[in-house]
Amino acid sequence: MAGEAETKRREENEIEFGRIVAFSDGVFSIAITLLVLNLGVEKGLVGSELIEELFDQWDNLLAFALSFAVIGRFWIVHHRFFSRIVAFDGRLLALNLLYLAWIVLIPFSCEVLGEYSGETPAVVLYSVNLAVVVLVGLWMGIDARRRGLLTVDEVTHRETGIRSAYIAGVFLLSVPLALVAPDVAPYLWFLLFVDPSSRLARRGD
Amino acid sequence: MAGEAETKRREENEIEFGRIVAFSDGVFSIAITLLVLNLGVEKGLVGSELIEELFDQWDNLLAFALSFAVIGRFWIVHHRFFSRIVAFDGRLLALNLLYLAWIVLIPFSCEVLGEYSGETPAVVLYSVNLAVVVLVGLWMGIDARRRGLLTVDEVTHRETGIRSAYIAGVFLLSVPLALVAPDVAPYLWFLLFVDPSSRLARRGD
Amino acid sequence: MAGEAETKRREENEIEFGRIVAFSDGVFSIAITLLVLNLGVEKGLVGSELIEELFDQWDNLLAFALSFAVIGRFWIVHHRFFSRIVAFDGRLLALNLLYLAWIVLIPFSCEVLGEYSGETPAVVLYSVNLAVVVLVGLWMGIDARRRGLLTVDEVTHRETGIRSAYIAGVFLLSVPLALVAPDVAPYLWFLLFVDPSSRLARRGD
Amino acid sequence: MAGEAETKRREENEIEFGRIVAFSDGVFSIAITLLVLNLGVEKGLVGSELIEELFDQWDNLLAFALSFAVIGRFWIVHHRFFSRIVAFDGRLLALNLLYLAWIVLIPFSCEVLGEYSGETPAVVLYSVNLAVVVLVGLWMGIDARRRGLLTVDEVTHRETGIRSAYIAGVFLLSVPLALVAPDVAPYLWFLLFVDPSSRLARRGD
Repeated sequence: MAGEAETKRREENEIEFGRIVAFSDGVFSIAITLLVLNLGVEKGLVGSELIEELFDQWDNLLAFALSFAVIGRFWIVHHRFFSRIVAFDGRLLALNLLYLAWIVLIPFSCEVLGEYSGETPAVVLYSVNLAVVVLVGLWMGIDARRRGLLTVDEVTHRETGIRSAYIAGVFLLSVPLALVAPDVAPYLWFLLFVDPSSRLARRGD
Repeated sequence: MAGEAETKRREENEIEFGRIVAFSDGVFSIAITLLVLNLGVEKGLVGSELIEELFDQWDNLLAFALSFAVIGRFWIVHHRFFSRIVAFDGRLLALNLLYLAWIVLIPFSCEVLGEYSGETPAVVLYSVNLAVVVLVGLWMGIDARRRGLLTVDEVTHRETGIRSAYIAGVFLLSVPLALVAPDVAPYLWFLLFVDPSSRLARRGD
Repeated sequence: MAGEAETKRREENEIEFGRIVAFSDGVFSIAITLLVLNLGVEKGLVGSELIEELFDQWDNLLAFALSFAVIGRFWIVHHRFFSRIVAFDGRLLALNLLYLAWIVLIPFSCEVLGEYSGETPAVVLYSVNLAVVVLVGLWMGIDARRRGLLTVDEVTHRETGIRSAYIAGVFLLSVPLALVAPDVAPYLWFLLFVDPSSRLARRGD
Repeated sequence: MAGEAETKRREENEIEFGRIVAFSDGVFSIAITLLVLNLGVEKGLVGSELIEELFDQWDNLLAFALSFAVIGRFWIVHHRFFSRIVAFDGRLLALNLLYLAWIVLIPFSCEVLGEYSGETPAVVLYSVNLAVVVLVGLWMGIDARRRGLLTVDEVTHRETGIRSAYIAGVFLLSVPLALVAPDVAPYLWFLLFVDPSSRLARRGD
């Protein structure tokens, strides 16, 4: 299954490029919508059992909200990344597929997290999945820039790199924490709302 | 996870704008199609049991029909809203994602309503879900107009506002009604077929 | 939930028109792909039980193949219909949504047919579902033409009408047959491979 | 259900052609994302049972990774094939639908393989499914070229043919092997990483 050696200019292959983007958008929108399948109620409950069952969905709903925000955020980043792509080749397509494979795994990790929210393996699985998404995205970005497929100024590039490293770092840091305090580890993810990358990237200038 | 500060003109970023719309359409079309997964029959039924099982799907079918109409209607409104957008930024994208998150929850609320159609928690869940969709949509519309991202004349804007308030009002009104008469509350939704917004919006002129 | 009174020319609203088509394509492609969810094997089978389980999927596979062909065929017809549309309004959008609602039901009818292939209710459900798709499509076509939204020559229009009536007729005819001989009724559907519409439509000329 | 006799030039029917490609992309992206539904954990596990359950997903994860790579690869091939199409007709649409039907079956074959990875029927089902995808794709390519719908130079055409035959050959060869050594047969698929087609196709020149 060898890749395509040839590099194609985007402006001369707008339709082909459009298909790559459309396929990626399709995968993102399906993955984000499949999250709802993790929610559900048992049949045949009576009286107040239904309310209890709905309240039992609370952890699933939190996992849904987090994962929706995360996939939505990754989609925006992916969308911005591809808007700066000026040429593509088989290698970029392969890296993009690898990236999407980890996006597609999120509904599974989300299901496990929602079902077992206070337990070590669930938190570790979720953290590793999301860290890998970010790291593959970083790899794809650096690789595309190095090979001249991407037009991006130095500050933006540095900012994206720092942001990716920061997000991956937060998720990876929650792995050892989950081993000792799985209940606490997800709170570490609130650090994602503090984003130092923009400030740090401009410090050098 | 900071937003994108920059505001982009739609006409200069038609491809990027197209992706936002395509992603939203993807989410809408998947959510509307996933509704069918709430329908199903058990295996291994014999004789007249299958007919009974199919008739037992009646509530699920009603919930399917209602939710299909509702998501379809929201899609038309979303579609018309984005056709009037002239510029976009990270804030609009974030609000759009929040809106889509509540759209994606509809198949879940629909499943609960179909399974427990005469019960208070199911009616409340469904009503709240749909009311929130409308209110987030209203928020997105007012916010986009205030920041100059939307071109829309005064009458249309007032009409949209009144219509949103009316739909949200009907759903929110069915919440207290569901607490005392959950069997009756869904009939309140027939008020959605009476739409006074167009007449009211023009009254001032 | 009133419709949109205004009629829009396609050529002046190509992007909005594109969204309608893209949304419909999304629904078609998801419905056709969800058919695979009706196939599946139980866990924990040992030895030759797996082979037996796979052979037990035979009826499900036939229902899958039939439904895939049918949805694919409907998609081609829909695709050709919309390529002839020159203007659209809220009424066409509403009819299109009604049409898509019945398309989305096909995976459910397919599941019931695959599970209970020799039984009357399953055959009736499947036949009625597909007949309604065709009849709503016919309604949408006649309505669009009468209101000047469709450019189509007389022969093609007559051919489409005859074909729709023929397909709906075959499915509706299998309903009474299924009441007396549910095993035989599906064989009536082979009549779909004989298509007299093209010949009949040209007879008048 | 007769096809469309007429052949349409792509350049004069870019929108209609775009819909075929968009529909195909939709099916590919949904099929590749549905793979995640084969992963899942039971509810109510306690203590180390969750870790065991996650490790039990190992075969499912391997089947997921393989199928994701395979569908992604088929999508790239399909994408390249359609970028060389200059005209289309009902016959190409029908063959494309037949091709997509076998793509849609992959999540099912993947589920069976993941559940029963060391057993003959699962390996045979998976191999046959993928071999048929390749062979239908080859048929579609040869047919399209013979009827002048495809512009492709001799070397590329020969290379595509040899590659398809090679991939189908590897999968078909694993069928008899699976009958005697189902544990070993999947290792044969590593031969897919060796691709002799490019070298062989250029030998003649």
